[in-house]
Amino acid sequence: MKQKIRDFKKNQIIDEAIDLISNHGFHLTTMDKLCENLQVSKPFLYSYFDNKHALLIEIYDRMVAISSKGIEEILKDRDLPENKIRRIVGYLATINIEVQAISAIYMQEEKNLPEDKRQQLRQIERHLDDEFTKLIEAGVHEGIFEVENPRIATLSIFSMARWVHRWYRPDHLPAEIVASQIATYALNLLRYRQRPS
Amino acid sequence: MKQKIRDFKKNQIIDEAIDLISNHGFHLTTMDKLCENLQVSKPFLYSYFDNKHALLIEIYDRMVAISSKGIEEILKDRDLPENKIRRIVGYLATINIEVQAISAIYMQEEKNLPEDKRQQLRQIERHLDDEFTKLIEAGVHEGIFEVENPRIATLSIFSMARWVHRWYRPDHLPAEIVASQIATYALNLLRYRQRPS
Repeated sequence: MKQKIRDFKKNQIIDEAIDLISNHGFHLTTMDKLCENLQVSKPFLYSYFDNKHALLIEIYDRMVAISSKGIEEILKDRDLPENKIRRIVGYLATINIEVQAISAIYMQEEKNLPEDKRQQLRQIERHLDDEFTKLIEAGVHEGIFEVENPRIATLSIFSMARWVHRWYRPDHLPAEIVASQIATYALNLLRYRQRPS
Repeated sequence: MKQKIRDFKKNQIIDEAIDLISNHGFHLTTMDKLCENLQVSKPFLYSYFDNKHALLIEIYDRMVAISSKGIEEILKDRDLPENKIRRIVGYLATINIEVQAISAIYMQEEKNLPEDKRQQLRQIERHLDDEFTKLIEAGVHEGIFEVENPRIATLSIFSMARWVHRWYRPDHLPAEIVASQIATYALNLLRYRQRPS
């Protein structure tokens, strides 16, 4: 029970930090401002986070946890490369819309992370790039995709799926429809031809 | 002659500011640091820019000048929609690679601009989105493209072309090849079919 309450309070702090950082940027977000908005004391806040850098790292970890977990599950599944590609792109686009503020922070505040954390993120991204490129290569090999450079295709597809948070507005269309269209674009981009059934 | 020298010095300042802001972010970039790196006095620097916000605005104006000018020219040309799309995407991707540091600033420091400047940028982007969407609609009408939602397609294509600066490394491939591949992906995404000749 005690731990659950602590977790609940911690999440409240993180949510407020996400709100402040995504609206005003990391540098204009202060621990004082956080206390003020949350109506808590400084000792209370510092009992959870030593400084705002620790908070930023926590936000990045949260984003990585959300995105990597889902994608790793899809990668592990027994499924055709074209299905995995559709599912991964749809998943990435969906979370970038659903956690729009965290996505914006993820893409914009990287230079405020410590070097070892940045390295770790690059490694995670590179691993995902590699796995996705392999899916494209498999499809090219099987004759269902037609693309000159699978690595550039991967990076271009991820740009589409990751930056949707910048332009998505709820009055456009529901998130799942936009995400599914982007997943279709990814397959179009690869000149996907259905297998003969 | 005097004006030319002044312009030259001004450009030196802007180049240094681009370097500092893209590496350390707007908030850690100070007028003092700029003077130090350029080995100039504060009165000299202030005779060009009142403050670092003026410098940031100048960098945004530079990016808008580069991208809008080229794109407006392509839009005005008498050319088929598929050719205009290929040329616009190729152009956008190329400049995002060539002025990689300015592109990074453009996408990351917007929240440090005054509200009226942000509004102006949004207007310019929306105008371009509208014109590009019309090109897609024209192609759908002529039966050379097949896409459900031209607006979402536009935004997805621009994500690809605009975020290339984040992943492009010179050891990948030359800029013009990457840009031309991205332009091809844009047409693939629209399920482009060549006209009967």
